[in-house]
Amino acid sequence: MAKKGELVSYRPDIKVVDCTLRDGGLVNNFFFDDDFVKNLYMANVAAGVEYMEFGYKASKEIFDVNEFGKWKFCDEQDIRDIVGDNDTDMKIAVMADVGRTDYKKDIIPKKDSVIDMVRIATYVNTIPAAIEMIDYCADMGYETTINVMAISTASENDLDIALELLSKSKVNVIYLVDSYGSMYPEQIRRYAEKYTEIAEANGKSVGIHAHNNQQLAFANTIEACAYGVSFLDATISGLGRGAGNCYMELLLGFLRNPRYSLNPILKFIQNRILPLKKAGVVWGCDVQYMLTGQQNQHPRSAIAFTADEREDYVRFYQSVLDRE
Amino acid sequence: MAKKGELVSYRPDIKVVDCTLRDGGLVNNFFFDDDFVKNLYMANVAAGVEYMEFGYKASKEIFDVNEFGKWKFCDEQDIRDIVGDNDTDMKIAVMADVGRTDYKKDIIPKKDSVIDMVRIATYVNTIPAAIEMIDYCADMGYETTINVMAISTASENDLDIALELLSKSKVNVIYLVDSYGSMYPEQIRRYAEKYTEIAEANGKSVGIHAHNNQQLAFANTIEACAYGVSFLDATISGLGRGAGNCYMELLLGFLRNPRYSLNPILKFIQNRILPLKKAGVVWGCDVQYMLTGQQNQHPRSAIAFTADEREDYVRFYQSVLDRE
Repeated sequence: MAKKGELVSYRPDIKVVDCTLRDGGLVNNFFFDDDFVKNLYMANVAAGVEYMEFGYKASKEIFDVNEFGKWKFCDEQDIRDIVGDNDTDMKIAVMADVGRTDYKKDIIPKKDSVIDMVRIATYVNTIPAAIEMIDYCADMGYETTINVMAISTASENDLDIALELLSKSKVNVIYLVDSYGSMYPEQIRRYAEKYTEIAEANGKSVGIHAHNNQQLAFANTIEACAYGVSFLDATISGLGRGAGNCYMELLLGFLRNPRYSLNPILKFIQNRILPLKKAGVVWGCDVQYMLTGQQNQHPRSAIAFTADEREDYVRFYQSVLDRE
Repeated sequence: MAKKGELVSYRPDIKVVDCTLRDGGLVNNFFFDDDFVKNLYMANVAAGVEYMEFGYKASKEIFDVNEFGKWKFCDEQDIRDIVGDNDTDMKIAVMADVGRTDYKKDIIPKKDSVIDMVRIATYVNTIPAAIEMIDYCADMGYETTINVMAISTASENDLDIALELLSKSKVNVIYLVDSYGSMYPEQIRRYAEKYTEIAEANGKSVGIHAHNNQQLAFANTIEACAYGVSFLDATISGLGRGAGNCYMELLLGFLRNPRYSLNPILKFIQNRILPLKKAGVVWGCDVQYMLTGQQNQHPRSAIAFTADEREDYVRFYQSVLDRE
């Protein structure tokens, strides 16, 4: 496999994507106050992050607006209340799940929106619907990414066909997603090679979105990066559902591009993340997430174990093994 | 670089070394009660771990026996009180620091000892003294390892000479040690190649001892393993000074050899590690250790920051940068 770049210089094609609000919203149902979001926005701009994902464009027909904070829906005006016209060089992203977004209603033409990029999340079995959304959003003027989830339980043959179809779509970035935090660096390298080969042949980039169930989110992200992946997702302090995500502060400390600055992120941790932790918001590596990750399972049972404040790991492990 | 093994089968040359007591002792000055140690011993035996390191053979001339628990000194009788004659297939190891061990007095002939392996810790600038200790212990009948510490701040030329000298000694295993948790997987692979090449040419094995300052201890351990390193150090729940070590439970979950069992380790976490945490013993990844790791520094300033219960990361970062 061909390695790209080394540790002393930097690759200008690399883009850092902050997903703190979107993945973090899965922890607290998107109930962040505006002050938190404004501070996060300013921290990301100051840190040199290239994209900030605000949340989901979820269907208000499917999800009750009273049960979720506003970043589940990302109304145009709510984003503008934070960023104004976003007169910065950081771009704004939102995520749209296949089958859970009224995209023909809620995605307005890019010329009327402060959003720059729509990230479409799909499973391998909903690729045609995903491509319809991609092409719709691209035609509206947006940059697009496709995040193919749960590939560790999909058949590799299906995945190959999915990548082939996506490579012919209008998507800009194809994401390698380790939904269950089950992948090891040597697997990431193999997938990174597969994804970059087909993406580059079709003028597209590849991204990585890693989870920390086995303490490998950062390692997998920089391994993917070393093998040609250029869009790197992270969240501050790994904020995200269950074991959380790749830590932004680890990633920026690794990257050598002088555009990045760690200080604004440290300040945000000090002023905003610590209070969140002290208020009882729980995320991050723990035994239960490791066990579901090792068994290549969705972390939902581990999340329930955490919510119930259980500590009987031995029994939980048996239940994880019984699942299969 | 040549990869060894893959994810489905296993390499029988791999040996897992539990360092929970030794690295963990750096957190609580080796004050573990006998019940904890006995449980740990039984858990390691049941889990299939090949070596258990009990602690240091530290000089009682240099260190005050009243200031440290007994595993700082590892008297023969103290080990025997836990393991009897150790009628198991797990071997017993102790560590001896160059210049801090009265080895000619405290290391007795192997035929009179329940200890199987002496692990000698050195810096690059004390290699001749280390070799004297290695050869002494080997002549007494022990297996030996050499752990060359702080190589990330040593000159590569000096390291090459050190490895050359060690390769001609009686040592069995040469350890790649990431003392500051500053190394990235691609650096680990490069060092692993260097170490294994010279070790294998001289009939020796290579080990890895990683720290978790940048959440890379496990990733670096399995990367080293994939490139031929066979002695893998870990501690349960990463127990160890500062950011701690490679997690045993992650490592055993990764290895495919059916001799390993995760259950005894989970039981130990449930019954012994959780109470330790609740009693206020602090270790594990945190921002301050990440910062010293990123800057390739000894974590002592981060350990002091933790002890002072400080949270002013921005100011601490500036002091870390000022160090150089």
